[in-house]
Amino acid sequence: MNEGASGAGRSGRTGRRPGKADTKPAILDAARARFAAGGFDKTSIRAIAADADVDPALVHHYFGTKQQLFAAVVNFPVDPDPTLAAVDAAPLDELGQTIVRAVVTVWDSPAGPGVVAMVRSIFAGGDQNLARSFLLQVVLERVRARIATADDDGRARVSLAAAQMMGVLTARKIIALEPLASMPIDAVVAAVGPSVQRYLTGDIGAR
Amino acid sequence: MNEGASGAGRSGRTGRRPGKADTKPAILDAARARFAAGGFDKTSIRAIAADADVDPALVHHYFGTKQQLFAAVVNFPVDPDPTLAAVDAAPLDELGQTIVRAVVTVWDSPAGPGVVAMVRSIFAGGDQNLARSFLLQVVLERVRARIATADDDGRARVSLAAAQMMGVLTARKIIALEPLASMPIDAVVAAVGPSVQRYLTGDIGAR
Repeated sequence: MNEGASGAGRSGRTGRRPGKADTKPAILDAARARFAAGGFDKTSIRAIAADADVDPALVHHYFGTKQQLFAAVVNFPVDPDPTLAAVDAAPLDELGQTIVRAVVTVWDSPAGPGVVAMVRSIFAGGDQNLARSFLLQVVLERVRARIATADDDGRARVSLAAAQMMGVLTARKIIALEPLASMPIDAVVAAVGPSVQRYLTGDIGAR
Repeated sequence: MNEGASGAGRSGRTGRRPGKADTKPAILDAARARFAAGGFDKTSIRAIAADADVDPALVHHYFGTKQQLFAAVVNFPVDPDPTLAAVDAAPLDELGQTIVRAVVTVWDSPAGPGVVAMVRSIFAGGDQNLARSFLLQVVLERVRARIATADDDGRARVSLAAAQMMGVLTARKIIALEPLASMPIDAVVAAVGPSVQRYLTGDIGAR
């Protein structure tokens, strides 16, 4: 008992800087407030670091990029960077199948239930939902930047592609609509990829 | 006060058959139990009438077809018959645009919030949800019957088309994803119609 009490006392006098254990939550709190108030683009790591009273380098050290910090704030269940990097690297005419394969692969992975929970929170959450902001301001914006041209900012195209992907997610994971719910990924890619491709780069009619 | 009491007493002695006011709820209760236990196809108006202790003709008189009775049981906010009749009447190669126009028109109508509420209940409700059964066993089955061939029962096609429509509904009405959320119906039909058409009658890849 004496040893236990002395152990607790010792841990309070180690070399760790006082309050260090609270640094990560403080950064997340500051980031949450900044992203909610100003959105992704207008929020800087520098401002978040100042609010949390830490060095900006520490924010990067703990959370990586600004995008990864936003993902951490909304409890995004997977690191979105590999998927977004795949979108950046894909040839323009393979964007549809690339997105369908990447997204369905994540949903079918062990991280899938976390993604579904996040999507449910977006469905329930209305405009103020930070997860919704992350989806729109980071994920969809990255796709839009890939397809934007001088004549077309790509916003309508990306919203149509996102609607298609939400429909597949909802059918497979939320209402378990068969046979789509059990369809192998290759078959989903073959069936849905051309629709996403047309929304992003094909003829979607006069607007 | 005397008059009020005598009025209440008088209404209890009118010519209405005792219990008649409870006939419609009794029919709905019986139908709900039958549809939940046996599904749409295996449930007969005759069995529902017997459970409710009324004549089958009275069930038809109050609720119309078996399909309309099912719609009443799940509080379907619009009569699905005109939409389903439009699907039956459309040329096979105009099925996509016909479905998108009919469905989006209902969602954008005064009945729209009721449809969205029903869809939210399906998202929340899991397998036992009767509204989900109505959607699958009545609405999607009617579309499947239109496109089924000797080689293809059309189930995968209908589930893909339904996923697409759910995605558009979710984007427009649940998460308000712009610019799709504000897109005029003609533009939605032009953009999404070809996808639904391909799912129903086009090349959806090897399965």
